[in-house]
Order: sequence, then structure tokens, then C-alpha cells
Amino acid sequence: MVPARLEGPIGIVGLGLIGGSLGLDLQARGMEVLALVHRQATAERARQRRLATHVSLDPAILRGCALVVLALPLDRLLAPEPALVQAIPAEAVVTDVGSVKAPVLECWTPLHPRFVAGHPMAGTAAAGVEAGQPGLFRGRPWVLTPDPPTDPAALDQVVSLAAAVEARCLVCPAAEHDRAVALISHLPVLVSAALLQGVDDAARRQGGGIPELVRALASSGFADTSRVGGGNPELGTLMARCNREALQDALAAYRRSLEQLERHLAQENWSALQEELRDCQQLRPGFL
Amino acid sequence: MVPARLEGPIGIVGLGLIGGSLGLDLQARGMEVLALVHRQATAERARQRRLATHVSLDPAILRGCALVVLALPLDRLLAPEPALVQAIPAEAVVTDVGSVKAPVLECWTPLHPRFVAGHPMAGTAAAGVEAGQPGLFRGRPWVLTPDPPTDPAALDQVVSLAAAVEARCLVCPAAEHDRAVALISHLPVLVSAALLQGVDDAARRQGGGIPELVRALASSGFADTSRVGGGNPELGTLMARCNREALQDALAAYRRSLEQLERHLAQENWSALQEELRDCQQLRPGFL
Repeated sequence: MVPARLEGPIGIVGLGLIGGSLGLDLQARGMEVLALVHRQATAERARQRRLATHVSLDPAILRGCALVVLALPLDRLLAPEPALVQAIPAEAVVTDVGSVKAPVLECWTPLHPRFVAGHPMAGTAAAGVEAGQPGLFRGRPWVLTPDPPTDPAALDQVVSLAAAVEARCLVCPAAEHDRAVALISHLPVLVSAALLQGVDDAARRQGGGIPELVRALASSGFADTSRVGGGNPELGTLMARCNREALQDALAAYRRSLEQLERHLAQENWSALQEELRDCQQLRPGFL
Repeated sequence: MVPARLEGPIGIVGLGLIGGSLGLDLQARGMEVLALVHRQATAERARQRRLATHVSLDPAILRGCALVVLALPLDRLLAPEPALVQAIPAEAVVTDVGSVKAPVLECWTPLHPRFVAGHPMAGTAAAGVEAGQPGLFRGRPWVLTPDPPTDPAALDQVVSLAAAVEARCLVCPAAEHDRAVALISHLPVLVSAALLQGVDDAARRQGGGIPELVRALASSGFADTSRVGGGNPELGTLMARCNREALQDALAAYRRSLEQLERHLAQENWSALQEELRDCQQLRPGFL
């Protein structure tokens, strides 16, 4: 798919990790970037970091934008301020970067005629106005989830936006996106969180030297397996909240697999356990 | 604890990751290292890599050793060849490097009067005669699990061995070690394996574009959480087999934590879920 010419100026609402990184990359491509932020301190720092061509606290900055990217956290995206909605030009293409797509489509399709739901899958542990960095999207997936009312010309513009920052564009239904991220992104958070709590809880119940010992002996395997469970609690909760049903299905599938492994252990069926672990060893490269 | 003078020559049985790394470090400290291996090809390669001062297929090489390190896989350690047991001098100190300690103590205490059970916790994904590397143990824990019959002078020698390769020596009962590694090492393997299988299974059941999509969208979070579950299946099974009861208890504690998170999700109790995730965020640094 050859992307259409990207039209500007481009408005970015929010200059956190995604908005700030987009601003840097788009300016490097010669685009004019007009950014709307919430707080004076953010605006000042964003100007120092040159995250956009112009930064303002006034939604009127979006007037004249051909494309507006809503780089807001999911909760603010799903409860947009009326002043923001009103300031977006009716003819502009509007897209978002939220990590769950069905609720965003449901919220924004009635609000704007040229809305296209999207999810650039690029991240670091950082957040806020200091987090934006050049090249964040290079080679990363950028999922678009148009539905029947989506304007095809608007979709083309968002494909061009993703191409401009060298992301790999993927197009799929919102429900498929949400089910996929429930499995590979939201489920791991709970699986990993339960590991931290389960280990801490078991160690404390057993007492003696165990609580200290588990901390002294935990190495890279435990650190890796517990990483996403020890992440941002607000973000984890928000994703669970906006993708509850898919996450519940994912948890049910996970529990079935865990119970199967547990059964082999209880029955001392070592050949079956080894078979399952071999299966896992073969599955993993497909996900890398 | 000031380590006693390490007495040599030192015998090493097996020149895989642990045995080979030990051989390199001990020779660098000026010790004579006499190694026993199983196969001619291993002996030749070990000589080329200078993993020991002398390498032989004949257990008689252990004659004259003051300290013998059994750097064998757990299954071979728990079913030692009679020729090996007979070749170890009665006055030598004997130690092992197995990752589960109670069964090793049970097996070796009657076999040798100066046996000391140990577990150097250093690893890479590599195995075999090519895996040994200098400095593997530096700053890593080396757990010793003496029991009442353990000869204190023998224990001192193994403490000195660990100190010679700059490991951090920890002494605790075998049962505590086994419960701790069940929690921070063996449990993560099953938790992580179930994630790989659960995601693959759910994606296939849902069909459509989901099986491809989950693979395209999986990123570093999924890669980290699934790493230990995609590891060596023989090793994973062996650990489960030798530490079954502690691993079952660990799984039970894990399931309780997972079910609690699942309950908050089902009840849409977002403040409770966020509280739990905040708890996890605070727990993790203690394990790093």
C-alpha cells in the first residue's frame, strides 16, 4: 500500500511519550506540528524540548489542522472535554492512540465524521513530557481499526501518518485488536502481578528465613517474569477496565493451561509435563 | 566469615556451564584442576578450551583430590555411577551444584562422609562444554545447605571455594532453599509456560485473524513474561520432579493471587484492582 501524501498542519493533543515522539518525528519530516496541552508547565517544557512547532493551552490552536492526533490517556480519550471536541475542525481527519479500540470507536464515531481509531504499539517505561523521543515508532506495529462508517480517505491519511514515522501499518477489526492485546499485553500484566503477590504471600506464610531468602535468590528469570506485573497500576487498571470481557476470556484460557500443567505435576506424569514444556519452547519464537 | 585456605588439587566432575566456568576461575587463581568427563569429544574440546589442568575419562583422575565438585545435571547427580562414588577419596570434601537440595542430601549423605550440598545460582542460556566462561559466579549467590551430619571443616572448604570465585555465600536449611527456589525459579517456569500455551490456545479457538495478529503484536512485555516458559523442557521437568511438593505449594499460592485479581475484574472493582497492582509495583524492587 503506497501511502497518500500526508497533509498538514498536524495537531497533537497531549505531548506524553506518544504525542511527544510523534511531534519530534513529524517535524524532522518537515511537517508543521501544532500541539495542545493541559498545563502551563507542560507547555513550557514541551517548547524547550521542541516537541512541536507551536504549543498552546488553548484548543483554538487546532483550527486549521488537516489531521488531529489524540495522544491522550485512555480515560481522557473516553471522556473528552467538550471544548476539545468543538475545537477540532469538522473537515480534519482525527485519530487516536488508545490501547483498546472498541470503546474508543463507540465514543468518537458519533463525535466526529472523519474519525479513524488507531494504536501505535511503541512504548518505554517512561511517561510525560520528558518521555518523547525520536524514532520511537520505527519498525513497530501501528494498528488501525476502521469500521463501516470510517471515511476511506481519512483512513489513507492515518496510514500516511504511520508511514511518515516508519511504523508498520496493520489494519484489522477493533474487536480482533482488543482480543489480541488482551492476550499478549493485558493478560501478561495480571499473570505477572499474581506471581509477585503469590511469591510474597507464600514466603510470608512459610516464615523463617524464606521471605529474605526469596529476595536474595531471585535472579533474571524472576525479574523478567515479574516485570510487567510491577508496572504502572493506573495503566494496568485502565486497560482491564476498557477491555474487561476479552481479558476475562484470556484469563480463562490461561487458567486452563495452568491447570493442565498442575495436573501433570500432581499425577507425576513427567513425560506429559516435558511434552508440554517442549511445546512451549517451540511456540515462543513465533511471538518474537 | 573469613574463608579457610582452599586446599587442592580440586576435582571437577562434568565440564558444562558450571563445571567449565569453575575450572577456568580456579586455574586463574593458581589451583590445579583435575576434571572427569563422560565422552572423548568433550575431553578433547575441554582440553582445547583449557577448562582444567588435566581432563580424563577415567574416574581414577580424582585420586589425590582434596575437594571434588560434582558439576552434574540433577538426574545424574541423583543416580551416581558406582565407579564415580568409589573413585572419590574418602578424606576428600565433596560438594555438588544441583538446583534442588533435599534429594541430593538424601542421596549423598550416606555415600560420602564429607559431603556438603551446594547450589551456585549463576546461569546463562548456554550449556555443555562450550558454555563455561570466566567470572560466571562473581557477585552471584552460592547457597550451601549443611545438615546436622555435615562436617564443619568440609563446609569451610566449600565456603572457601565459593569465595575463590567471588560468589556470595549463603547458608540455609535444604528445605528452605528448596521452597525458595520453588517460588522464585520453578514457579515462574510454569506460570510463563501456561502463558504461551494459553495465548496460543485462545488465539486458535477464536480463529479469524487472531492467531496471526497476536504474533504480530506481541512485544517486549510478552517476550519477557514468556522467556523462562520457553526454556529447556528437560531442565524444567527435572526441577519439577525433584521439587514437586514445594512447587505444588507455590502453585497453590499463585492461584490464590490470580483468582483474587480475576475476582476484582469480574466484580468490576477497579479501586481494589488498582490497589493490588500498586502493591505489586512496590513489591518488585525487593526482588531485583
